[in-house]
Parts: sequence; structure tokens; C-alpha cells
Amino acid sequence: MPEFRRDIISGQWVIIAADRVKRPETFACKGKYEIDHAALPERMESCPFCPGNEGMTPPEVLALGRREGTPDSPGWRVRVVPNMFPAVRAGDGSAGEARPGEGAFFYREPGCGVHEVLIETTAHNRHPGSISREQMRLVVDSYYRRYQALSGNQTLRFIMIFRNHGREAGASIEHPHSQLIALPFIPGQVRMELEGAHEYYLNRRECPYCRLLEEERRSGIRMVAENSFFSAYMPFASRYPFETWLLPRRHQSSFLDMEEKEREALAALLNEVLGRLSLVLDDPPYNFYLHSAPLRLAALPHYHWHLELIPKLTATAAFEMGAGVFINVVVPEEAAAFLRNKGGDSIESRGEGILCPGLAQSPTRG
Amino acid sequence: MPEFRRDIISGQWVIIAADRVKRPETFACKGKYEIDHAALPERMESCPFCPGNEGMTPPEVLALGRREGTPDSPGWRVRVVPNMFPAVRAGDGSAGEARPGEGAFFYREPGCGVHEVLIETTAHNRHPGSISREQMRLVVDSYYRRYQALSGNQTLRFIMIFRNHGREAGASIEHPHSQLIALPFIPGQVRMELEGAHEYYLNRRECPYCRLLEEERRSGIRMVAENSFFSAYMPFASRYPFETWLLPRRHQSSFLDMEEKEREALAALLNEVLGRLSLVLDDPPYNFYLHSAPLRLAALPHYHWHLELIPKLTATAAFEMGAGVFINVVVPEEAAAFLRNKGGDSIESRGEGILCPGLAQSPTRG
Repeated sequence: MPEFRRDIISGQWVIIAADRVKRPETFACKGKYEIDHAALPERMESCPFCPGNEGMTPPEVLALGRREGTPDSPGWRVRVVPNMFPAVRAGDGSAGEARPGEGAFFYREPGCGVHEVLIETTAHNRHPGSISREQMRLVVDSYYRRYQALSGNQTLRFIMIFRNHGREAGASIEHPHSQLIALPFIPGQVRMELEGAHEYYLNRRECPYCRLLEEERRSGIRMVAENSFFSAYMPFASRYPFETWLLPRRHQSSFLDMEEKEREALAALLNEVLGRLSLVLDDPPYNFYLHSAPLRLAALPHYHWHLELIPKLTATAAFEMGAGVFINVVVPEEAAAFLRNKGGDSIESRGEGILCPGLAQSPTRG
Repeated sequence: MPEFRRDIISGQWVIIAADRVKRPETFACKGKYEIDHAALPERMESCPFCPGNEGMTPPEVLALGRREGTPDSPGWRVRVVPNMFPAVRAGDGSAGEARPGEGAFFYREPGCGVHEVLIETTAHNRHPGSISREQMRLVVDSYYRRYQALSGNQTLRFIMIFRNHGREAGASIEHPHSQLIALPFIPGQVRMELEGAHEYYLNRRECPYCRLLEEERRSGIRMVAENSFFSAYMPFASRYPFETWLLPRRHQSSFLDMEEKEREALAALLNEVLGRLSLVLDDPPYNFYLHSAPLRLAALPHYHWHLELIPKLTATAAFEMGAGVFINVVVPEEAAAFLRNKGGDSIESRGEGILCPGLAQSPTRG
């Protein structure tokens, strides 16, 4: 029998479609995806993100790891530049006006904001599933530093950091990179979460994410991995196969609330989860994004920032688009067990504080 | 400069990304898509939807056009059958219970509902962009009759009729078909529209869709085509390139409110728009779905049923998923002009009551 599941925060339904259901290993197909990252060269002459090609991008806004030398020269380990083809642009934040002849019915304003690219490594053919933990830590540091630098901008209300991996997931440039878009409004998906979490909090006087995490850690059936400061699990009402959320274990509503050891732990867990996904599903395309509180708010007791990671394994079709109800063909409990158990090595044996047993070592780490 | 546009009903923002913007004709690439429908045979031995293979599907629930003969035999022109791999299933509608050990925190219930396939023609290689208007009328009749038959079922709250065309849009079977999923709850996307429309109505005492239609018909810049009973236009805050909505011109909240001449007009306009899209974009993949009021409600003054048609021309990536804010690389006014003007024939010359000039004759009609 198929099953409806409801997310306690968003109130949204998903369908776990028993008659269409697939075993998690169905998605572990060798050579299924368009780009074989392992077969790419380490440097591409024509790639604007490869070292030596710094002149092909707008001037950098941040570089990590360059000890000497001038800006926009090699020597960096992570480099952040404005997007060449931005979805939004710097502006004076003034509101737009309806154009003549259209009436006030159609509201538009200039697309003011910030759109940056965070180049995660010098190696064209690496990706977060195959970089070192140390390199991942620099990536997380670059997220944090850009977030911090932009958060004081009074024209901005929200910062979204996100990553598209693989062509099927919308990545147009192969060289590993994340992106940041800062907006002068709170996006609808985030507003929905904030409102759902607020409603829950009014009724029960507890952060729904803290409670979720407690429940997930207690049952363990949807846990993927964790360390002392972060946990990764697959949501009860997962919309997509292998959808995985990473949450800080301490209550914090903004990404900026993280302390240094927490940033280190986030890098370690994200590296672990991406490495594991890449290993068991053979470098699948995926998307991830951060959901954090709007900028410059006091600590919110009901909201808890997190990272949502979604492998792109199935097509989103008319029913999902029209209903907002996702049909998931993989049972989250089975996907989580598959991700925990495939391989054999225990993470504990690596002495890195990952508590979930059965999670094997990740592939190549540079 | 990029532009933010806000939808007056949903309140959602889109970004018309000027720096990434593409001319509408960019998407008109010959042979770009995975399936060349024109190259398929008219009948496939192995296709469960081809005539003569009626035994390969569950027993039909409706057949149109069969003058004699027994059910589940050839002679039909449109045939409706239960989905072999349903996302939801018939059930007694009883609520589910939280499973032991999980607590009430995780709410689930049996996936009760109805999932049907509407086989639109006997020809394996036709699609709604290339079938006759008469055949399209039978398809719309089948939508209407199944909607009507299921609407009395007290366990159901909402019926979604939808279509996936092409592999990129999630179609797994080539033979032209639509689908129907009936649910015991109101899906989130529809609830959001209902709430936004209600809020608008409370403030302004007019149906926002009626007003939108009036504004669109007055300016004409986003109009695609229309006849005496239906209009097609591209929304001001289009989320996707070439996104097109079809609305009845008379206020009506439910799909079931249509009179016979309106069903005929819907078939004619849908045929026209799909034929035109297929011609100018070379048979692109697309999704469409109907948004109608929940079942068994009195007429709603604030809601107006409609069809949303979305060609699948770009990938939805992390930013869109995480923000719910869509980045559209085509200006709707340009896409509408392109769809109106490409070709040259005036629709008026066909004497079919299409008021927008410049819309050329559609391709092959069987």
C-alpha cells in the first residue's frame, strides 16, 4: 500500500509510492550520469576557474590560502568571485515602479542583490565527494566569511548558499564551485518553513527541529551519520530518494551562529556524507542549499538553520509541480540503512567521532 | 538589469535574469529532445496503450468512441484505465496511525486515492500537438467525465489531471496519455493559491483571476491566443520560459462548471497552443496540470480554475528548489510575441474564432 507522510513543520504531504518503490541500490548505476568527473583532467586551459586563468573572472572578493602574491593570481586554495552572468546585481535598493500602461496590478522592481561563485579547489576534476577534509574546511570557511561580509548590507534580507553538481542538476561549469545569491526579500520556501516552525513553537514551546533531531537520534532508523556537533538524517517525509538534511545539534537559527569547532564539524560531516553518496551511487548529480534565518534578526527560538541535500535521481513531473506533493519511490528508512551500511568499514574505526556504525570509509581523498 | 516580479495571487517572486536572458528562438532547436515523436511507428507491438493490447492494462473504466464490441477490445478512440503502478490506491479512507516506537511526531496514513491513465488516441506516434481538434475534444470529454464520476466519492478531496510529454518531462511511456490522481487532501500548491486568492478577494471584492484576465486582454502583450470562451496568456511572473496559462473567460471555480460549448472551446484552444508550441519549439517536452477548486464545494467567488502549461526547457536547480524563487531566462512578453508571430498565417483566416492575429496554422493534424 502506498503511504502519505506529512512533514510536521511545512505541513506538506509526500507519497511513498509502494507500487513504484525501488530498492535503494537501483540508483547505484555505474556510468549512468552525463559527466564522469574522474575522467576529467586536473586543469583545463579554457576553464575560467582553473588556476592561471584568474583574469577570466571578475576580480576576486575573497581568496583563502594564498600566502603571498597579488590578488587574482595563482596560489589560492579557495577563491570567491562575482558571477559573470548574475541572476541579480548590485543596485541602490530603491523600489521599482509599475511601468506605464500596466497598472499597479503587475508589481516589479530592479533585481538588486549579490551573486557570487565560490571556487572550491584548484583541481578541475575534484568535487566535494573527493576533496580532503582540510579543503572542505576551507570551503565552509569561505561560505561563512562571505555570509558574514554581506550580512551587514542593509539592502539585503536573505542569503542563499547552494551547490549544483552534474549537468542533470543544473551545473553549467564542471569546475567544482558553490554559489551565493543574496536577496532583498525572504524567499517563499524559507518563509513557509519559518511560519510552520513558528506555529509549532507557539503550540509546543520547543524548536521543532531540535525535537526532530532528538526523535531521529533516538530511533536511529533514518540517521546517516553524525559527529559531536552535527547530525545527518533522511527526513521522515523525504520528497526525493536519498534526500538528506544536515543540522547543527546545538539550537541556532542562523548560519552565522556557528562557532569555529562547529564549522570544522560541518565540513567533516558534509565531506563524509558527500563522499559516501558519491561512493554508493557512483558520483550522482545533486543539489544542496542552506536554509538559515533572515539577516540581522535576533536569535529565533523556533528556527534552526540546516543544509538540505538532494540527489537528482528522478524527474520532477507535472503532478509534483502542480500539487507540490512529491512522489518518492524510495523508502527513506531503506535509503538511510543503505547509505549507513554499504561498504563495511565502521566510521568509528577512523576515530573521527562519527557515531553511526556501519558507515564505510569514503573514496579517494586528495 | 535583472528584474524581480511578484505574482499577485501567490505572492511569489521570480527573477527575470537579464544578464542570462535568452531570445525565445534559442529554444527552437531541431532534434534537441530525446524522443522524435514523428519518427515513431503508429503502432507498437509491446505498447500496453496501443489497440489490440487492451489485455495488457487493468480493465477500462471509460471508453469513448467504441460503437460496438465488448469492453477492453479495440474500437475506442479514447480509453481510461487504472494505472498499473499507482502512486495511490483505492482504500477505505480510514486514517492511519503512527507506528509504535515513532511517536505521534511522525504522521502517516495509507495512500488512499485513485490513479488513472487517459489514453488519448490509438496512434502511438501522435501527441496533442498533432491530433485533430475532434480527437482533442474527446480527450477533454474524458477528463470531464472521469472528474465528474469521481467527484462524488466522499473519501476524495481533490482531483489533479495532468500530462507529462517527453522523457525530460518525466514521461515513461511514449504512447500519448494524460493522468488523473485523486487525493483525500488538498495539495499544498493548490492551498497556497486558494489562500492567496481569498486574501485578494477579501481586500478587493473581485476574483483576482478575472481581473488578471481583463488586464492581460487589455494590454495584449502576454496574450498567446483566445476564443470566445477561453484565453491563453503567459503570466507576468512566469516561473519558466514559455509558461502558458489557459483560463475560462467566464468566472468558474471548478473544472466541472464548464458547459458543453466551453469544453469544446477548451479543446480547441489547448489544441491550438500545443500545436503552436510544438511547431515553434520543435516538439518540446512539457508538463501541464489543471488547478480546480477542491471537490464538492459551493461556487467560490475568489477562485478560478485553470490549466498551467510548462515546457521543460531549463533545469530546476538548487536555488529554485531552496528558495522557491524561479530564475527565468526568457522575458514572458518576448516569448508570447514569438509564439503569436512565428509563422505568418493569421488564425482568424481559419475562421475558428481565435482573436489574436499572427498565430499561424499548427502542424499536421490527423
